[in-house]
Amino acid sequence: MESRVRESFERQTFMSTLGARLISVSAGEVIIELEHREDLVQQNGFLHAGVTTAVVDSACGYAALTMMPEGSDVLSVEFKVNLLSPAAGSRFRAVGKVVKSGRTLTVCQGEMIALDSGKTVAIMTATMIASR
Amino acid sequence: MESRVRESFERQTFMSTLGARLISVSAGEVIIELEHREDLVQQNGFLHAGVTTAVVDSACGYAALTMMPEGSDVLSVEFKVNLLSPAAGSRFRAVGKVVKSGRTLTVCQGEMIALDSGKTVAIMTATMIASR
Amino acid sequence: MESRVRESFERQTFMSTLGARLISVSAGEVIIELEHREDLVQQNGFLHAGVTTAVVDSACGYAALTMMPEGSDVLSVEFKVNLLSPAAGSRFRAVGKVVKSGRTLTVCQGEMIALDSGKTVAIMTATMIASR
Amino acid sequence: MESRVRESFERQTFMSTLGARLISVSAGEVIIELEHREDLVQQNGFLHAGVTTAVVDSACGYAALTMMPEGSDVLSVEFKVNLLSPAAGSRFRAVGKVVKSGRTLTVCQGEMIALDSGKTVAIMTATMIASR
Repeated sequence: MESRVRESFERQTFMSTLGARLISVSAGEVIIELEHREDLVQQNGFLHAGVTTAVVDSACGYAALTMMPEGSDVLSVEFKVNLLSPAAGSRFRAVGKVVKSGRTLTVCQGEMIALDSGKTVAIMTATMIASR
Repeated sequence: MESRVRESFERQTFMSTLGARLISVSAGEVIIELEHREDLVQQNGFLHAGVTTAVVDSACGYAALTMMPEGSDVLSVEFKVNLLSPAAGSRFRAVGKVVKSGRTLTVCQGEMIALDSGKTVAIMTATMIASR
Repeated sequence: MESRVRESFERQTFMSTLGARLISVSAGEVIIELEHREDLVQQNGFLHAGVTTAVVDSACGYAALTMMPEGSDVLSVEFKVNLLSPAAGSRFRAVGKVVKSGRTLTVCQGEMIALDSGKTVAIMTATMIASR
Repeated sequence: MESRVRESFERQTFMSTLGARLISVSAGEVIIELEHREDLVQQNGFLHAGVTTAVVDSACGYAALTMMPEGSDVLSVEFKVNLLSPAAGSRFRAVGKVVKSGRTLTVCQGEMIALDSGKTVAIMTATMIASR
């Protein structure tokens, strides 16, 4: 299961563009971390909402993949993100968890935590679909 | 109005990291374009949903900013994205439009169009807040 | 197609509890209307957001059903509603439209219009699934 | 705080139309319950998604109100609902909780639990705004 996720994560070149690292993979939960970089920010110097979305989406997607039958691939159907606080700090952790896993669709919730402050800076609810 | 948006867009270093360019700014509508690059993809070689979200979010945010009083800054409160088709192709256009502009909150809708095929690959609804 | 939608709409007893009427059914678009009633309001006397959601969700769901193969039933996977203005007025029209119709999932957008003022009081994006 | 919420809840005539009862009010959390009724269903005999949304939205809104300054009223800005399972059963509990409370906006998460089975049938993320 972990090797399946790692192999797919490595094909997501955007994750390495962001400097994101896959930290842990367990049944129904995936953690990704990344560091603040000056080339990833919005107009006030905080991490761009698109960066936050990218890593939480990948964490949710791979959390979903851990619950899907072997040979499945996972695609995001839709997600919704609430940005609770500016993504300020030097290190961030994206956690994605499966809330409900079905044959076709899997619903996940995720969050982005600013590790310096411990604050949750964003929350996501996502629907993922299994494909073959 | 356009210079206000351009100035803020240039401070969004993440936009230049993605190779995104601000194409047009009018009252209540902003267009951003970007090209496919091999370092922006998910596991199947399509643009990562985080890339799509980033540029449509910026297009929506700046569309909102065009309707806000001078001296305002804009922040994303929340957004929801539906991914309609894989983001396949060589060039993409993000269009953000204001649906309802209020004193505090502005609601926008946006889309990402794959210019090769003309397909809308993603739609967004976003809530933006004016800050000072 | 229309009889299929009408027959299902009539089994939605909640629609008649709300006094909602199915106005029109065409390929990819369904319209439902309802009147303001004193027993459908929130604390300020406007239509409750749950009433608005109910009729726009049904309009979107049946719009999706018009694009599904015969013998399908439709279920809401998820929706997101932005409440743009208080639902003030005496009559309301919910319009649901298909944005992207797929084999399994159909994405719709809907709105609630206050007919007295012509204002769009709420917008919805919804994902519907076909079942057998 | 509780009397402020109860007083507003009683003005929401739609809650009594649904037979919904305010069960508990504490700082940042509100619980509402309702029973299955044959006049509240969709085409398969399950609670209509609009009913679920109505009670979870009210639970979230009043949870937000508990964190707002005296004299505030609360309005829903937007919400997103994922329907995890058919709302089957005889009794349901809607729980709304504050995730992040700010001066203007409050973000809540809520769920609808089918009490017979203990299943969470729907989850909501909502943004609420304080008005005077």
